[in-house]
Amino acid sequence: MNKWKKIKAITMDVDGVMTDGCLVAFDSHEMVRIFNAKDSFAIRVALMRGFRVGVFSGGDTEGVRNRFLTCGMDPDDIHLGCRGKIKDFRSFCTKYGLEPSEVLYIGDDVPDVPVLKAAGIGAVPADAARDAVKAADYVCEAPGGKGCVREVIEGVLREQGKWYFDEGEYEKIF
Amino acid sequence: MNKWKKIKAITMDVDGVMTDGCLVAFDSHEMVRIFNAKDSFAIRVALMRGFRVGVFSGGDTEGVRNRFLTCGMDPDDIHLGCRGKIKDFRSFCTKYGLEPSEVLYIGDDVPDVPVLKAAGIGAVPADAARDAVKAADYVCEAPGGKGCVREVIEGVLREQGKWYFDEGEYEKIF
Amino acid sequence: MNKWKKIKAITMDVDGVMTDGCLVAFDSHEMVRIFNAKDSFAIRVALMRGFRVGVFSGGDTEGVRNRFLTCGMDPDDIHLGCRGKIKDFRSFCTKYGLEPSEVLYIGDDVPDVPVLKAAGIGAVPADAARDAVKAADYVCEAPGGKGCVREVIEGVLREQGKWYFDEGEYEKIF
Amino acid sequence: MNKWKKIKAITMDVDGVMTDGCLVAFDSHEMVRIFNAKDSFAIRVALMRGFRVGVFSGGDTEGVRNRFLTCGMDPDDIHLGCRGKIKDFRSFCTKYGLEPSEVLYIGDDVPDVPVLKAAGIGAVPADAARDAVKAADYVCEAPGGKGCVREVIEGVLREQGKWYFDEGEYEKIF
Repeated sequence: MNKWKKIKAITMDVDGVMTDGCLVAFDSHEMVRIFNAKDSFAIRVALMRGFRVGVFSGGDTEGVRNRFLTCGMDPDDIHLGCRGKIKDFRSFCTKYGLEPSEVLYIGDDVPDVPVLKAAGIGAVPADAARDAVKAADYVCEAPGGKGCVREVIEGVLREQGKWYFDEGEYEKIF
Repeated sequence: MNKWKKIKAITMDVDGVMTDGCLVAFDSHEMVRIFNAKDSFAIRVALMRGFRVGVFSGGDTEGVRNRFLTCGMDPDDIHLGCRGKIKDFRSFCTKYGLEPSEVLYIGDDVPDVPVLKAAGIGAVPADAARDAVKAADYVCEAPGGKGCVREVIEGVLREQGKWYFDEGEYEKIF
Repeated sequence: MNKWKKIKAITMDVDGVMTDGCLVAFDSHEMVRIFNAKDSFAIRVALMRGFRVGVFSGGDTEGVRNRFLTCGMDPDDIHLGCRGKIKDFRSFCTKYGLEPSEVLYIGDDVPDVPVLKAAGIGAVPADAARDAVKAADYVCEAPGGKGCVREVIEGVLREQGKWYFDEGEYEKIF
Repeated sequence: MNKWKKIKAITMDVDGVMTDGCLVAFDSHEMVRIFNAKDSFAIRVALMRGFRVGVFSGGDTEGVRNRFLTCGMDPDDIHLGCRGKIKDFRSFCTKYGLEPSEVLYIGDDVPDVPVLKAAGIGAVPADAARDAVKAADYVCEAPGGKGCVREVIEGVLREQGKWYFDEGEYEKIF
């Protein structure tokens, strides 16, 4: 069966995937990220269609956590400050009774390699690091922060016939 | 008659249209947008030439509201926190006695689709989502946040012979 | 004589010239601009070689003023909140006993048109508005905020044999 | 012997190298830089493999200092507020008993020229100033702030057989 049809959960890294890798470094030591509205929209739609959505990132800031919360994500599925993402990825699968083959992961750099290999679909943004590209099943047309998460989520939902919008739904997604 | 000649009001979405979709996510939970000076200039000119200008956005922050106020817009025409933009678009038309065919709308994503279809001219930035492009009458050369609003406003005003600048006006537009 | 050899002062607009047009809109109503280090460097060098440098902008914020002050500019030559730039440009010329033909101006949009025409060299960034391009003598290879000011200043100084760096000067420019 | 095999230390400028040259100018006079996660990752890996890493920049802000500290750098090797970088570069070499031929330097503009010439490998981002390109041994494919530091560090480590990642290391680099 087509790999894309089996996907039940969509998981991702933050820097270089949900962002273009930018770290805005303030004197207060706050490190700010810049997200993309089309990606957030896709996460909201995926949740509405019953997909589980998870985040695994080495970074850990309130700004990042809040961005995912405002997308409607379950706080338990936002894993920040990860050291060794593969462990967290495996726990996520076990917790929700998911086979790794049912989970898509989007990552862009060396620390993502073990998860890209373990996931049913390992996807990378167009501008991912060489090692990540080598480990990937799918290379996005969009680079990090410019819609690669949207591209992958829209791809999965279209493949499964779940990318449609009923009249009443326009009030829930925005 | 040429559709562009009939336009009396210019309306738009914010994220992905007045911005490139960026959401700068601070730890304070403030979500900052980045606008473009050429777009703001065009809004000021449109208002000066008697066009009604309206905004319909799902997002709702003081930063966005203030940006449109400093362009000289009527506070009543800045609709933030929209859920179901088509209702707000219809109320806007009724309030000002405008036919939808006299209103241009620029949007970039799925929630904009009903308004893109209802408006006299539905325009999308060069990098709009697939569903929005399908619903559009006009695809801009400029992507979101990089002058697509300027392109469309300048287009309407040139078509109607209203894109000209008198000596004294240089002190009003800046 | 070559126009570039006659230039004694370099003047410019801010939004779309020293920046790519971005306006970062905070909830506090602060409107932040993003400048480019290569442009600032060129302004410092021009001042060191005896050129007068002036700024004429419709916007007026402390962030912009401070950026030009840290480039070493004379506070009297930073004209912010301009309404009708051509008046301010003419006063600048008179004050310093400069012929307009001795002054270069870089602008990118409609309000810059009268100054682009009056200046000895009217230059525009690669992504300037159509009206500005029509009024210009020189179109930069670089767009606004990506080095167009550097390109023009380096061009003037090279033409006049003033783009050189002595050992000791490396401690003054940085 | 291949120059890249001799490199024991990696040194760099900040503006235009670790950033795309952007200076985000706040009204508070804070001047914020935007860094790139792939560059930071490479610095952490270089340190882990025993390379000395140094920074020489004319700018001097807490935001920049903190960014390099969170990459794991020795505070003594973060030289900010440099006036005449070549002196600081020479002291760095002497302090650690390094020949200049064992040190790689990445810079992008005129103040970097003496260091680009002195270093074993002088590298510049794809969008470096003309004078810097002329003084360089290697021109990166990536422009400043978009991975040029990553490109150079990954290049050195691959050449020396040090770009590999053991299972346990995934918990140290992130």
